[in-house]
Amino acid sequence: MKVVKFGGSSLSDATQLKKVLKIVKADTERRFIIVSAPGKRHETDIKVTDLLIQYADAFLANQSTEMVELAIIERYQQISEEFNLKSALPEIASHIHQLKETKHRDQARVMDLFKSSGENCHAMLIAELFSANGVPATYVNPNDAGILVEDLPGEAIIKPVAYTKIKQLKELDTVAVIPGFFGYTEEGEICTFSRGGSDVTGSIIAAGVSADCYENFTDVDAIYAANPGLIANCQPITELSFREMRELSYTGFRVLHDEALMPARQANVPVIIKNTNNPEAPGTKISAQKVSHPTPVTGIAGDSGFTSIYISKYLMNRQLGFGYDVLKIFKELNLQFDHMPSGIDDITLIMRQNQLTTELENTLISRLTTELELDEIKVMHNISMIALVGEGMKNNIGVASRATSALSKKHINLEMINQGSSEVSILFAIEDSHTDEAIKALYHEFF
Amino acid sequence: MKVVKFGGSSLSDATQLKKVLKIVKADTERRFIIVSAPGKRHETDIKVTDLLIQYADAFLANQSTEMVELAIIERYQQISEEFNLKSALPEIASHIHQLKETKHRDQARVMDLFKSSGENCHAMLIAELFSANGVPATYVNPNDAGILVEDLPGEAIIKPVAYTKIKQLKELDTVAVIPGFFGYTEEGEICTFSRGGSDVTGSIIAAGVSADCYENFTDVDAIYAANPGLIANCQPITELSFREMRELSYTGFRVLHDEALMPARQANVPVIIKNTNNPEAPGTKISAQKVSHPTPVTGIAGDSGFTSIYISKYLMNRQLGFGYDVLKIFKELNLQFDHMPSGIDDITLIMRQNQLTTELENTLISRLTTELELDEIKVMHNISMIALVGEGMKNNIGVASRATSALSKKHINLEMINQGSSEVSILFAIEDSHTDEAIKALYHEFF
Repeated sequence: MKVVKFGGSSLSDATQLKKVLKIVKADTERRFIIVSAPGKRHETDIKVTDLLIQYADAFLANQSTEMVELAIIERYQQISEEFNLKSALPEIASHIHQLKETKHRDQARVMDLFKSSGENCHAMLIAELFSANGVPATYVNPNDAGILVEDLPGEAIIKPVAYTKIKQLKELDTVAVIPGFFGYTEEGEICTFSRGGSDVTGSIIAAGVSADCYENFTDVDAIYAANPGLIANCQPITELSFREMRELSYTGFRVLHDEALMPARQANVPVIIKNTNNPEAPGTKISAQKVSHPTPVTGIAGDSGFTSIYISKYLMNRQLGFGYDVLKIFKELNLQFDHMPSGIDDITLIMRQNQLTTELENTLISRLTTELELDEIKVMHNISMIALVGEGMKNNIGVASRATSALSKKHINLEMINQGSSEVSILFAIEDSHTDEAIKALYHEFF
Repeated sequence: MKVVKFGGSSLSDATQLKKVLKIVKADTERRFIIVSAPGKRHETDIKVTDLLIQYADAFLANQSTEMVELAIIERYQQISEEFNLKSALPEIASHIHQLKETKHRDQARVMDLFKSSGENCHAMLIAELFSANGVPATYVNPNDAGILVEDLPGEAIIKPVAYTKIKQLKELDTVAVIPGFFGYTEEGEICTFSRGGSDVTGSIIAAGVSADCYENFTDVDAIYAANPGLIANCQPITELSFREMRELSYTGFRVLHDEALMPARQANVPVIIKNTNNPEAPGTKISAQKVSHPTPVTGIAGDSGFTSIYISKYLMNRQLGFGYDVLKIFKELNLQFDHMPSGIDDITLIMRQNQLTTELENTLISRLTTELELDEIKVMHNISMIALVGEGMKNNIGVASRATSALSKKHINLEMINQGSSEVSILFAIEDSHTDEAIKALYHEFF
């Protein structure tokens, strides 16, 4: 039994939907189909979700919504006509028109209700499309599916208790078509996951029904060992562990976001990234245990936007609880640090720059300096973190040496090296401006 | 104006004292002489301090002390006779005999009183010796010198207010001979510094009188770039910064302990390590600012006895205050961590093994696991920390690369690499059993 999620570009028009139909037909184990809203058909097209946001904005501003309503309905209409479908479209049109009758004036709730309609309507249409083309299918509303979430508009989180009901989906005797991206609260309100949240729905359903795998169809053949926009003919990754995927996504890989992997990971369901436009390609399999480690390094990622704060105090490491006192100030200012490498009498705190306003940065520095009686404090902005990730690194002496040597040959100075005993990754901090160059140098060293 | 401290082996007998006299005479700037108790004259000799500890132990156990008293006095007597001195010896003998009349029964206080006598008596004798040999000198008791300390027997700490009185020593018109190792509390009780504490006294006096330098005479020509017992013909270090010295002493260099450097460092007084037996050798100068950085790496040190605790939890770095919660448990258990490198979802805590009993280790692990809801925890004992130290590393691209490559060639796996943005040091964690091999490999790479 497989759970299959299709992204917006895989469902954008009739041409794409024919590919989807073929994929679903090709394997009778594909029983749970999670759909996104229709995506872009071409470079300058507008995604249905973005049209729905325009609709919500106009509605909240008491402006005319007629044109945008028509534009949204037209997307479904085109598909409906091409497949000669009859029943879903009137319901879709009515649903879109009725959105503006909502009594809610709470902006976040209105936004979630409007945005969720893109996936919801598409699921109705696709269920009809499947049934009319030899794949008996049922549209299942997330409420009926049991996707019960915490009441956090735009940032919904599944409630653990939900899985009991989701499990019952296994009893359905047709293919289930479930809209991605949203769930329902205890009070019956719609709440969406963060953007890209159809991936989350797929992962939740996969965990709930204990699927054999969760196939995530998108528009790339695989996850690549580095940014393919940067490296010509970049090598695809055939197998990844969940840990590797997590470390790669932390530093810039955007194929699947972290929340999307969590339910599948916890339920030990492998995730397979595949291409709707080239379903024969093996794709990338993400699972708890990789079978083979052909290379010590699996992938290389890089992300900018970090700030480092270096603090030093003589005999710091004799002072019981010094680190605790540092992190207490961070916690009190609601700041999250990502790494904390240390010398003997110094600690460097590395954090995401976007947490800091100038004012907050000044407060942080002044509190650290005075409360901890520091000898020195230095702030460095515009730091990039480069991650070298691979389960095969653990027992491979010399990875660190090859990596530092490759960077040194390009005259890239290391502000920080961080390797914990997990050894799934080595992290380097460098100046922002060298990010691309560093990734290229590391790629050519290891691939 | 120079403060000069002589260690026990430099003051062990008349032969050594003649060298000391010559050194003091050679430079009229040498105005403040800090003396240790007489040390070993040969391999199987017993230091006077150790004799005094035997004396104290016997006294506290109400055993006979006659033999040990004589053994102690004899050491001073020999020197006194060789130099034909008259006045100090009777006072020394009387002081030693009277120790057993003390009314104190508090063990720590008795120990401090007895132990301090070694330095105290020697300072009296040496002041007479200097005066009788062309160097007018005055014995200055630490109480008169103003060495006012916190009441912590065996672990005395100078009170900041003390420096005002110490400064007045500058007005003395002879050489001052001051016993090292101890000070007086507000209540007039003797309190010793931790063992090796004559170095501390020298540093305090140097800071108090704002000396041009603090010469520390011992029995080695210099501080070496690595353990000279391990590396044949190991290179001496001519110049060190305080930061470098601190990082080297953290990981095993035992020439001067950290507390000993602190007062001089804070008062910006350079410290010079010299050899009584070869005063012509330039020695090693430790100061705030090194003039030159002939090599990127200044020294290599290694120390064993560390434990690493690896903890992991999925999406750890999204959890505000996670690091704080970890360190809170450490603080509550009175445990000190030394380093905390991290991956994305894991943190490794590296700490001195000697803090942990089996029971405490179990408590720590169980608290971390349950209170933080960890996915995984792994403990690794018998870790060594190797430090590569050098002010010249900061702008020297490639040091990390050369170091990791040298270790990799010897098939030494790195459990951890830690380089903060200070870049005065890179720390490697390796298995204990590879310590010597790692130091040798790094030495041969950089020297």
